[in-house]
Amino acid sequence: MKKLINNPRNLVREVLEGLVDTTPGLALLDSENVILRWDGRAPQDRPVAVLSGGGSGHEPGHAGYVGHGMLAAAITGDVFTSPSVDAILAGIKAVAGPRGAVLIVKNYTGDRLNFGLAAELATTDGIPTEVVMVADDVALRDTVPPTRRRGIAGTVLVHKVAGWAASSGLAVAEVAAMARRAASGVGTMGVALGPCTVPSVGTPGFVLADDEIELGLGIHGEKGVQRLPMQTADTLVERMLDTIVLDGDLKPGTRVAILVNGLGATPPIELAVVARHALAHARARGLSRRN
Amino acid sequence: MKKLINNPRNLVREVLEGLVDTTPGLALLDSENVILRWDGRAPQDRPVAVLSGGGSGHEPGHAGYVGHGMLAAAITGDVFTSPSVDAILAGIKAVAGPRGAVLIVKNYTGDRLNFGLAAELATTDGIPTEVVMVADDVALRDTVPPTRRRGIAGTVLVHKVAGWAASSGLAVAEVAAMARRAASGVGTMGVALGPCTVPSVGTPGFVLADDEIELGLGIHGEKGVQRLPMQTADTLVERMLDTIVLDGDLKPGTRVAILVNGLGATPPIELAVVARHALAHARARGLSRRN
Repeated sequence: MKKLINNPRNLVREVLEGLVDTTPGLALLDSENVILRWDGRAPQDRPVAVLSGGGSGHEPGHAGYVGHGMLAAAITGDVFTSPSVDAILAGIKAVAGPRGAVLIVKNYTGDRLNFGLAAELATTDGIPTEVVMVADDVALRDTVPPTRRRGIAGTVLVHKVAGWAASSGLAVAEVAAMARRAASGVGTMGVALGPCTVPSVGTPGFVLADDEIELGLGIHGEKGVQRLPMQTADTLVERMLDTIVLDGDLKPGTRVAILVNGLGATPPIELAVVARHALAHARARGLSRRN
Repeated sequence: MKKLINNPRNLVREVLEGLVDTTPGLALLDSENVILRWDGRAPQDRPVAVLSGGGSGHEPGHAGYVGHGMLAAAITGDVFTSPSVDAILAGIKAVAGPRGAVLIVKNYTGDRLNFGLAAELATTDGIPTEVVMVADDVALRDTVPPTRRRGIAGTVLVHKVAGWAASSGLAVAEVAAMARRAASGVGTMGVALGPCTVPSVGTPGFVLADDEIELGLGIHGEKGVQRLPMQTADTLVERMLDTIVLDGDLKPGTRVAILVNGLGATPPIELAVVARHALAHARARGLSRRN
């Protein structure tokens, strides 16, 4: 394992410290790995707070999406590990008040449990808190029922919708409803050219040959749904986008937003090639751009 | 070679098309690989235009730094290849007028020649054009004289200073003078955990063992100045920063700006760890932060 890190045990805390050191307006709780934007408002003056989080290792998510009009705080567990109920509750109390909080949670067992329990405790403590689940991975469409799909990169678009709703002054139920509507309309599919290495483990989770790729990876090093020979970027884009369009039953004329991301590891040069053809192929499928 | 690309011959053009498709306010010349911000002003109304460029493969430089207060245009050659004189001249004419242009050029033979000749031709055509060379690679301090050092990542800070000066309405000689002053104060050092693969070649330029790294790489796959065993991020940061401080003779109390970059390939999680300790070690050396 070659990584620019120190002791893997301290990795997440060091990453959050580095983010706060280099980003104006962010703060880090002393006691928990929670990043928040600090606006100095008293609890009773705070708008609905949108929070997200989960395991680390998906940078720039989650902490990188804390900011005005996006998340009020991010609760970050260890790499690929759900944060504790205590950490989530501390995050909610640090940024929310009596108007409430909305937690955007990706659909994994640990996250469901811990965020769900923290939301109940916060509500009991006078902060009405709703949980919005995101289960956008269409790669699993033939394998599991929709409610068991994983939450992956499309979650960022749900952050954005919920963050806008909260910063517009909407009530907690309205923010949650808008976020749920966004979550239900998001479809995502991933491709990997190689496995990832969890720093505390030090070896890759699986092996791909020099000419092999996998479609439908999870974001925690889970193996893909389908192994294929290497293909051109355009071919892969069409395959993934066609699956998303089929799954969402997107008719010509539908307005869409497209998110292309590389989970922090794909160079911008390749993401630009992918984005170019994703836009072109979406147009060819009759979809129009949501500006 | 596993990359999300199509035919390597079309790579640069496709990348630029993808960038323009996804970035409001940018345009791409039909005839040359030149990205520009289009403000619709007639030549005689244009402020001094700051341009940069060079080989591609250093994303998000150069095209990613075109924007308000930064570059007016970027001229991008093929991967690791200087753009042609014709392309540079087309870029200058597309964004500059009689108030002139400043070209920020990294210190490589091809770039020196082509940008220098294009500047002469533009000046002859009524666009007074100055060239500012950047030679910030302190890894070569014991190997070559300062004038033969390579230009690397610190060039982005020179873009920023020159871009500010131009957008403030300064004259071409003043913009060039500020950019030269910035260039003379920038020191940069690189470390690589692995080689890079030029898409049209398809194989890495050199090989590193699983526990080897190199200090003082160039940005075109040139081998490093020194090969070392793998070390912690903090140790590497101190080694590089100490070299930069020594080379620049930076006394305690000096105000500095720190740029940490990964040439598009290092994940944000590792860059955050590096940035954290770079700031801490700079403070420990008595340097203060330029806000």
